[in-house]
Amino acid sequence: MIRKNPAFENLAAGYLFPEIAKRRRSYAAAHPDAKLISLGIGNTTEPLTPYITAAMKSYVEALGTAAGYSGYGDDSAGEAPLRAKIASVLYGGLVGADEVFVSDGAKCDVGRVQQMFGAAVSVAVQDPAYPVYVDGSVMVGAAGKMPASAAGYADVTYMPCLPENNFFPDLSVVKPDSLIYFCSPNNPTGAVATKAELRRLVDFARANGCIILFDAAYFAFIRDPSLPKTIFEIDGARECAVEINSFSKPIGFTGVRLGWTVIPKELRFADGTPVQTLWTRLTNTFFNGASNIAQAGGLASLDPEGLAEMRTLTDYYLENARLIREALSGANFTAEGVETYAQGNAPYLWVRFPGRKSWEVFDAILDRCRVVTTPGAGFGPAGESFIRFSSFGHRSAVVEACDRLAQLKL
Amino acid sequence: MIRKNPAFENLAAGYLFPEIAKRRRSYAAAHPDAKLISLGIGNTTEPLTPYITAAMKSYVEALGTAAGYSGYGDDSAGEAPLRAKIASVLYGGLVGADEVFVSDGAKCDVGRVQQMFGAAVSVAVQDPAYPVYVDGSVMVGAAGKMPASAAGYADVTYMPCLPENNFFPDLSVVKPDSLIYFCSPNNPTGAVATKAELRRLVDFARANGCIILFDAAYFAFIRDPSLPKTIFEIDGARECAVEINSFSKPIGFTGVRLGWTVIPKELRFADGTPVQTLWTRLTNTFFNGASNIAQAGGLASLDPEGLAEMRTLTDYYLENARLIREALSGANFTAEGVETYAQGNAPYLWVRFPGRKSWEVFDAILDRCRVVTTPGAGFGPAGESFIRFSSFGHRSAVVEACDRLAQLKL
Repeated sequence: MIRKNPAFENLAAGYLFPEIAKRRRSYAAAHPDAKLISLGIGNTTEPLTPYITAAMKSYVEALGTAAGYSGYGDDSAGEAPLRAKIASVLYGGLVGADEVFVSDGAKCDVGRVQQMFGAAVSVAVQDPAYPVYVDGSVMVGAAGKMPASAAGYADVTYMPCLPENNFFPDLSVVKPDSLIYFCSPNNPTGAVATKAELRRLVDFARANGCIILFDAAYFAFIRDPSLPKTIFEIDGARECAVEINSFSKPIGFTGVRLGWTVIPKELRFADGTPVQTLWTRLTNTFFNGASNIAQAGGLASLDPEGLAEMRTLTDYYLENARLIREALSGANFTAEGVETYAQGNAPYLWVRFPGRKSWEVFDAILDRCRVVTTPGAGFGPAGESFIRFSSFGHRSAVVEACDRLAQLKL
Repeated sequence: MIRKNPAFENLAAGYLFPEIAKRRRSYAAAHPDAKLISLGIGNTTEPLTPYITAAMKSYVEALGTAAGYSGYGDDSAGEAPLRAKIASVLYGGLVGADEVFVSDGAKCDVGRVQQMFGAAVSVAVQDPAYPVYVDGSVMVGAAGKMPASAAGYADVTYMPCLPENNFFPDLSVVKPDSLIYFCSPNNPTGAVATKAELRRLVDFARANGCIILFDAAYFAFIRDPSLPKTIFEIDGARECAVEINSFSKPIGFTGVRLGWTVIPKELRFADGTPVQTLWTRLTNTFFNGASNIAQAGGLASLDPEGLAEMRTLTDYYLENARLIREALSGANFTAEGVETYAQGNAPYLWVRFPGRKSWEVFDAILDRCRVVTTPGAGFGPAGESFIRFSSFGHRSAVVEACDRLAQLKL
């Protein structure tokens, strides 16, 4: 019989969000009358916007004609017009069209990047962080084991991001030649790194032979014009960074599936091989491109009409975030010393419940408010005592959840 | 600086199809007036069919409404109605809905299966074979090196499939506890294994602790009712096989992206862990499901109207195959001892040019007929001297290509 891939033996827990869905289901089964509201998983809830929908509709129609049909793209990197438009509209020419690789989403491309770097690379992650960075590293064999006594994997360097350091980590803990995962606007903390902070990150990476995997999937929520939306606003980033991005949250494409990754030409491995070379080889072998229908929608979203819709849609969720923030500033929370971290540039609120365990608070809010959240400890050791509130939801549900939260006795 | 993933050092060549595209482009550049026709890559050319197109169009429309919008699915395995319909319509209940995992295509799932099995597994492939089986094995570290003197990777067992063995391999060369790649209808040979042959394969796998990765992506081209369309027609396959499949060729979804993989509940690793458990953990982490629009199209294709369209579309390509076969039986070919292998149950024709090298024949056909084919040697050592002709193309182009081939002097 074939033996189980030993890397999987090292996984300490199931993937976070299915775990939460399981708890939610079992709570719902035990309380069939409870009207649960989810402020948990970051799943978009509002309809696709009209201009983008219309573009996909006509694209589908065209696929049914000889003139409009297309099969596989020329390679897996995406349609040329979309690559060019991402480069010009979203990056203002800071990157070239041939440095943009269209994907079926950020999560999938994080996995492909991990496969490209393989088992031997040193890994550093912000703590807390999106679970795929660590879980994926475990599955490709780069994370080592989780000792029974430890709160983290042996071969992963955790960089705590806490209110105490303004959510920007002490980089001196990172080993040379590491792959550094950095997400801004951050999932789960909502913190956005400033230009000065990203400069420190880029300078550190260049001085220490590191490559930054910069996850910018929440860029569209940034409202403060002084905050960088891409790592490529920083000089030198082209020599040390890959940027992963997504249409999921900007235009509600969580189910439609579309994203992209930027790999600058200057980025090289130690032997001089361009990272683009391995990426192209990997994706040509394991990937056949994003759905052409999704690509047509992404292209439309970068027209002026599409960009206006993107703005309206993300404004909607940001208003939800403001309402949740207001509810969490009620007397019942302040009396307990609860602190909410939210700058208004991200769809997540990161909330500390001093002296309590994340899963305990998760259960309390589920049981007493019938509101599903995400326990901070699921994002890493430094997430303990925190809860992530997601602002993705219908307004009416969010308002109702806020009312319930305002009455919560902790 | 970060070192290149050593597994990539072992890759002996670029991915086959981009290599061919490169040769094609450079030929076209040197001969700007040449009207090239491609019988090379298996890329569908005919429009999406009306019923399936209409279903996707209304689905896109619905995504623009509050009632019809959906984001991430509950997990990455696909929409429940599609999983159920694949199980009932395509497998007649031989597999359960909860054994069907919807994907964005067969190629992508081959990669995920390889990642799940990891570097330590022994690998056996039909020779010739779809290049992803071997290239992907190299990239996950399971294939070993390509010695300068050898025609294949050190840790891959090649199972020659030639006219001499009716394209069914001698299984006795396979090591115990191997992952056996088996494709039927076969890419590139077009051969379809009989029930008796698949029974031998299943019996061998069960007796030797092997798991079969059965690629059935061309099932929709089978016209001979005695030939099996799925490995699960064979008793015992549930204990030893994973089946990978695709909507690409049946309904022209090469660009739309949709496929599925069947993992029976009985299938287990040596320690008793169900293969489904690792698969779910892997795909929840690295994948977010196929595009929901593509899934709506796939669902429609399994209605009676959709199935009728699938039949018409595959009939079209099979008629192309018949025309190419006819052209290849011309006096110019028979004089050279050229032999065409094609049973009429696959979109590919496998053609032997005795005493010649594949790439030499490829170049000759490109230069003299301006027809792009695929050199058999690109599919493995046993593909040398063969050419694969693909029947995917507009009828008018195929007819023109046949006229040119009929006049070819070898």
